[in-house]
Amino acid sequence: MDSYLIQVNGHGDCAPVMDVHLNTNGNSLSLGKVKGRKPRWAVRASEMSKKTFNPVRAIVDSMKVEPNPRKAMISLSLGDPTVFGNLPTNDEVTQAVKEILDSGRYNGYAPSVGYQSCREAVAAYYNCPEAPLEAQDVILTSGCSQAIELALAVLANPGQNILVPRPGFSLYKTLALSMGIEVKFYNLLPEKSWEIDLKHLESLVDEKTACLVINNPSNPCGSVFSKSHLQKILAVASRHCVPILADEIYGDMVFADCKYEPIATLSTNVPILSCGGLAKRWLVPGWRMGWILIHDRRDIFGNEIRDGLLRLSQRILGPCTIIQGALEHILHRTPPEFYHNTLSILKSNADLCYAALSAIPGLQPVRPAGAMYLMVEIEMEHFPEFENDVEFTERLISEQSVFCLPATCFEYPNFFRVVITVPEEMILEACSRIQEFCEMHYQGAEGAQDMECDK
Amino acid sequence: MDSYLIQVNGHGDCAPVMDVHLNTNGNSLSLGKVKGRKPRWAVRASEMSKKTFNPVRAIVDSMKVEPNPRKAMISLSLGDPTVFGNLPTNDEVTQAVKEILDSGRYNGYAPSVGYQSCREAVAAYYNCPEAPLEAQDVILTSGCSQAIELALAVLANPGQNILVPRPGFSLYKTLALSMGIEVKFYNLLPEKSWEIDLKHLESLVDEKTACLVINNPSNPCGSVFSKSHLQKILAVASRHCVPILADEIYGDMVFADCKYEPIATLSTNVPILSCGGLAKRWLVPGWRMGWILIHDRRDIFGNEIRDGLLRLSQRILGPCTIIQGALEHILHRTPPEFYHNTLSILKSNADLCYAALSAIPGLQPVRPAGAMYLMVEIEMEHFPEFENDVEFTERLISEQSVFCLPATCFEYPNFFRVVITVPEEMILEACSRIQEFCEMHYQGAEGAQDMECDK
Repeated sequence: MDSYLIQVNGHGDCAPVMDVHLNTNGNSLSLGKVKGRKPRWAVRASEMSKKTFNPVRAIVDSMKVEPNPRKAMISLSLGDPTVFGNLPTNDEVTQAVKEILDSGRYNGYAPSVGYQSCREAVAAYYNCPEAPLEAQDVILTSGCSQAIELALAVLANPGQNILVPRPGFSLYKTLALSMGIEVKFYNLLPEKSWEIDLKHLESLVDEKTACLVINNPSNPCGSVFSKSHLQKILAVASRHCVPILADEIYGDMVFADCKYEPIATLSTNVPILSCGGLAKRWLVPGWRMGWILIHDRRDIFGNEIRDGLLRLSQRILGPCTIIQGALEHILHRTPPEFYHNTLSILKSNADLCYAALSAIPGLQPVRPAGAMYLMVEIEMEHFPEFENDVEFTERLISEQSVFCLPATCFEYPNFFRVVITVPEEMILEACSRIQEFCEMHYQGAEGAQDMECDK
Repeated sequence: MDSYLIQVNGHGDCAPVMDVHLNTNGNSLSLGKVKGRKPRWAVRASEMSKKTFNPVRAIVDSMKVEPNPRKAMISLSLGDPTVFGNLPTNDEVTQAVKEILDSGRYNGYAPSVGYQSCREAVAAYYNCPEAPLEAQDVILTSGCSQAIELALAVLANPGQNILVPRPGFSLYKTLALSMGIEVKFYNLLPEKSWEIDLKHLESLVDEKTACLVINNPSNPCGSVFSKSHLQKILAVASRHCVPILADEIYGDMVFADCKYEPIATLSTNVPILSCGGLAKRWLVPGWRMGWILIHDRRDIFGNEIRDGLLRLSQRILGPCTIIQGALEHILHRTPPEFYHNTLSILKSNADLCYAALSAIPGLQPVRPAGAMYLMVEIEMEHFPEFENDVEFTERLISEQSVFCLPATCFEYPNFFRVVITVPEEMILEACSRIQEFCEMHYQGAEGAQDMECDK
C-alpha cells in the first residue's frame, strides 16, 4: 500500500467545515462516493480530458530548453505567420471587420452554422464547375480546428478508425483519440516529394475505416499533391467507399511553379468534407474563422451527414459574428497582389533555406512546393552523439539558440520541421547556425574517432 | 423484409462509375463494409452527432407556425438582445475592438486558454476578497456555450450524472447527453420565486453525481437567488462533496431592488467552475467571448481539473483573438451608465409585462428579478381547447402572430417564456394580443359551455 499524507485544510476565515483530502505523491486519490459513508472530496478530471493529448506540447515541454545565452533565440517552430510582423494581413481585411463593427448589425447570434449570406459568400468564392457549391454546402466554424473536429465527430464512431498521414499534423490524432477513434498512419514518401504510399494506404483500409484524412498542401511537409496523385488517392477511396476529410487550410498557398487542385474538383463520386479557413492565406490564425465545404454530388452523405454537422454545430454556436460579417469583403476585396506577395516571400525563404541546408553535410532537406514549412532529414548515423531528432533539436537550442520542431511531433522521427514565414535575415542566420552546429557534431562514415581527435 | 428502392445515380458529366445506393423509406441503409464483398457506400452520421439533440429546435421546428397574415409578427422567443436594435452595445466596446484591429498585434494564435494579459484582465475584473482570482484561474472560451461544454467535459465521465435545473436552459442536457452523461432534473419552485427545491435536489445526489449545475440569474425564469439560498445550495454540495458548475452568464444583470451574489463569493470549500462571457451584459452574444473562472481555494480541483481544461481547450484553440485583445478595455472602459441603462430598460419592460399579464385571467406570470426573461404559467384547466403549452403557443402564433417559447423547451410544461429585451411598444402590443387571445379561449371553472355560447 502506498504511504499517504492526510491533509486537513482549515481556511482562516472560512466556516469550520473540515475537508479530509488524501494525497498520494501529489495526486488526488479517488475514493468514490460510497453510500452510507461520509462523502469525501474526490474530483477527478474526465477520461476524455485525459485522452485529449497534444503530442507537440508533450514533446516540447519535455525538452530541456535552455538557449545559449550568448545568442539571441530564433524560433522556427511555430506555424503562426504573424509572429515576426513581416507578414501582416491586408488592410482590406482589417477594414472589412471595422466596417462590420461600425454597422452594429453583426453583434447578435448567427445560426450555429453561420449567417446564410456569409455561407453564400464562401460558397461563391470556392464554387467552380467541377465542384459546385451553394450556401447550404458551407458550415462556418470556429477555426479550421473546429472544422476538423466536427468533420471527424460526424463521420466516425468510437471503435472505428481513420487514416492519417505520417508525417502529419498532430491535431487529427489528438481529436480522434479523445473521441475513442483509432488512428492508422499511412506513410508519405520523402523521396517522392511526400506523395502518399498508396499501397500502404490501401492496405490499411478495413471495414471499420470511417474516413481518409488528407492534408494538401501539407503541414509539416510543405508538399503539394499533383492532379494525377490526387486522382489516385480518390481511386483508393472510391474502391473502398471511404469518404475523405480534406484538410485544405493551406489551399492556394503554392509556389508559382506548382498548381493547387482542391481534391473535390477531381472527385466523381467520393464524398468530401473540405476543411479550410482564413488562418493561413489571410494571415489571421487567431481570428478563428474556419469552414467545412460539403462536396457530395452523388448524394452519399445525404441529409444524414448534413444534419449531423448542423446538430454538432449547435454545441458552441459557430465563429465570431463580426468576422463572419466581414467574410464577403475579405474574400472579394483582398487584392491579388497580397496573395502573390505572401507567396513570393515564402518561395524566396524556401529557396534560401533549402539551398543553405542542402549544403550541410548530414542534413537532407526536402524541397517544399507550398504551405509554410520545410522538412529536413537528419542523417542520424552521422550524428552518433544524439539519440534522435528530439535530442538533436534540443542541443540545437542549447548551443545555437535555434528552435525547430523535432518531427517526432509529427510521428516521423529523424527529421525536423522548419517554419519559413520568418524574416529572411533570420532564416539565413538560423541556417548558418545550423551549419555551425552540424559541422561541430558531424562524424563521417569512417574516421569518426579521428575527427573527434582533430578538434 | 422492408421493401426498398434501388437508386442508380448517374451524373451527367461524371465518369461512368455507378453507385448503388439503397433507400428504405428515404433512410440510407447501412450495409457495412464486409470483407470479400465489393464495398458499397454507406456513410452514416456518428452516434454522437445523433445524440446531440437541441430540444428547442425540435419543438420549434415541429410547431405549425403560420402567423396571422393580418398581424405583424412579434417574436418574444429569442434570447438575443440585439434583434430589435433597441439595445446596442456601448461605443467603447466597439471602439476597443477597432483599436485592437488597428494595432495588428492580435492576429496570431493565442495560447489555447487565452492570452495571459486577457486572462489577467478578466481575473482582475471579477477578483474580490471573498473569491480571489488570478490569471491562471481564467480559461477563455468560444462563448459561454464552450465554457459550459469544457466544464462538463472535464468534470463528468459517460455513465455519471449531472444535476440540472427544471425549468432550465436546454444546452446542459444537449451537451451532457451527447457525451453519454445522464441528466437528473431538480425542481425550481415558481411559488418561491424559482428557488431550488433543496430537498428534491439533495434526494437526487448519488455516487455517480459529477456536478451540480446552477444557473443564476436564470434563463428562462429571470430569477435571482438570494445570498441565504445560495448558502443552502452550497451546503448541499458540501455535504455530498459535489462540485458546482455555475452558469453565471447573466451575472450582474439584476434589477435595482435585488443583489447578485456570485456563488463563489459564498463558498468556503465547494470548488466551482463559473461560466460567463460578454454575450448578455455587453450585448454582443455573436462575438463568442466566454470564460471559465476556476474557484478552488481548498485545492480540491487541484492541477487535475486545470490540466484537463487546458488539454480540452487545445481542441479548437479558444476565442477570436481580436475580441480577446479588446477585453481589458471592454471591461474597464464601458461606462457604468451603459449597464444601468440596459437594466432600467429590462426592469421597466419586466414591470410592464408582468402587470399586463397578471391582469389576464388564466395566466400567472412570475415576477422576474434579473436576466432577460419572464415565465408565465398557463392555467391549462381554463384553456381546455389546448392540449399543452406547445399547442397554446402555436395557436398564439396563428391567431395573434405572437411567438413565445413553450416552456416544454425547458422541460417545464404549462408555462411559456417571454423575452423582455424587445422594445416597449412591442411588449405592450404583444401583451394586448395575448390578452385578446386568452379572452377568446378562456373558460371559467363553471359555465365553460355558456361562455362558448355567449360569443
